[in-house]
Amino acid sequence: MHVFDEDTRVEQVAPGLFAGRISDRWGIGLVPNGGYVLSVAMAALRGALPGLDPLTVTAHFLRPAKVGEARIAVEVVKAGRRFSTVAARLEQDSGEVIRVLGTYGRIAHGSAPVYVAGSPPLLPPRESLVPAWSGTKESPPEAGTMAMTIRERFDVRFDPATSAFQRGERGESAELRGWLRFSDGRLPDVHALGLLADALPPPVFNLLSPGWVPTVELTVHVRAHPVGEWLRCVFRTRFVQNGLLEEDGEIWDESGTLVALSRQMAAMPQPQRRA
Amino acid sequence: MHVFDEDTRVEQVAPGLFAGRISDRWGIGLVPNGGYVLSVAMAALRGALPGLDPLTVTAHFLRPAKVGEARIAVEVVKAGRRFSTVAARLEQDSGEVIRVLGTYGRIAHGSAPVYVAGSPPLLPPRESLVPAWSGTKESPPEAGTMAMTIRERFDVRFDPATSAFQRGERGESAELRGWLRFSDGRLPDVHALGLLADALPPPVFNLLSPGWVPTVELTVHVRAHPVGEWLRCVFRTRFVQNGLLEEDGEIWDESGTLVALSRQMAAMPQPQRRA
Repeated sequence: MHVFDEDTRVEQVAPGLFAGRISDRWGIGLVPNGGYVLSVAMAALRGALPGLDPLTVTAHFLRPAKVGEARIAVEVVKAGRRFSTVAARLEQDSGEVIRVLGTYGRIAHGSAPVYVAGSPPLLPPRESLVPAWSGTKESPPEAGTMAMTIRERFDVRFDPATSAFQRGERGESAELRGWLRFSDGRLPDVHALGLLADALPPPVFNLLSPGWVPTVELTVHVRAHPVGEWLRCVFRTRFVQNGLLEEDGEIWDESGTLVALSRQMAAMPQPQRRA
Repeated sequence: MHVFDEDTRVEQVAPGLFAGRISDRWGIGLVPNGGYVLSVAMAALRGALPGLDPLTVTAHFLRPAKVGEARIAVEVVKAGRRFSTVAARLEQDSGEVIRVLGTYGRIAHGSAPVYVAGSPPLLPPRESLVPAWSGTKESPPEAGTMAMTIRERFDVRFDPATSAFQRGERGESAELRGWLRFSDGRLPDVHALGLLADALPPPVFNLLSPGWVPTVELTVHVRAHPVGEWLRCVFRTRFVQNGLLEEDGEIWDESGTLVALSRQMAAMPQPQRRA
């Protein structure tokens, strides 16, 4: 079993109630990655809507998740012929962590797009790129923090033209392009796209000092079933104002099909959270 | 009192419960506009969170609204120091119409952006543009439909380079740019942006035969308090696949500030709904 599936396993314990666990393998310092936490909630939604695909899922982040038990309460708001809408609360002992609203349905495999005005991000061949963080000397985690364990979960190849922050430099724009796959061979599917849309560092790191960029809200539109192992991604921030920024993502698969559009609202970088 | 404020008036009738009314003045054929219905729900959210501004609001559309009474149940999910998250259900006798999830906070007036990579859409001077629908002979509504009453609510000036569908022609892309203001002098504010993000016809009408394009989900990021009366808008659809499309919007104010980003997921045009 792949790490993603192990770490998003949920069990129905009562009608509309699922039990799961937040693992320490998706950590960004002290805090489990938001897209990972969403994926645990989406595992419960999948349990409540067997056979359906997420079409559009929105999560609002209420407080940082902690490693440990989680309960997910699912409400089927409307089970329709074509669209089914669901709400979920993921709670831990500290309180409610995320609230989710989503609409599920069926996405045909291999259905041809009617209209496409866009193309996968242009990237250097991935064989020519150094895996991200491969040259990083991971310092031992400071007291009370997890290491950046999330880095072990993915094989990431940034286009160096867009990842100045990785070299400690400033970039020209808040755009980050790269190749992305699970490092353990797990194939991307529609249920993992909530995580994959939040798996890369914030592109605003190219402009502002890196720090903790808490997600306020994340919405993912799932547009196709991914084909293949590698994804081509582009994430960009165009507007930083009022202490907030947006992060828009496109995720394309190996067949050259757009598989997800994402947008999140996040707060400007803040000093890294400590315990 | 302006029409928008009259038609989004709500009254608290119990803790967390508001009564309102869906008016016939925002109709698109048989169906009240989705952004308008969202605005009635947002009026209840505003009542529950006095003094706060919407930052990010998502609505999932469950069934078409009907003209008549509505009840809005509001749950304050978390009242925080900086961010407050709320959920709402708007119900009518036919059942639940929309489910809403939002995070509210405070947007400083006139705060300067830290970073902007974008600019208002280039538009011909609005004095040079014919108001939209001014040459349209409105045929009397067919049995069981409202007229397009929403058209009376707004003064819209499309850039003709982007509004081929208005002339019964096909366009080159699913992009629609134009000037937009309330026709009765009501100034746009953060509470009206849910409506304004859904006020123009779908840009995909430039490519596919116009029809009923039901919104599945609409998310609006409010980024600034609008200044002035006129808004400059651009809406575009880049991907139509699996029977679904996205519609991305940018709304800019007279001071040249981005005031909202919007994205909706909608279904492909369908024959107009009849009673």
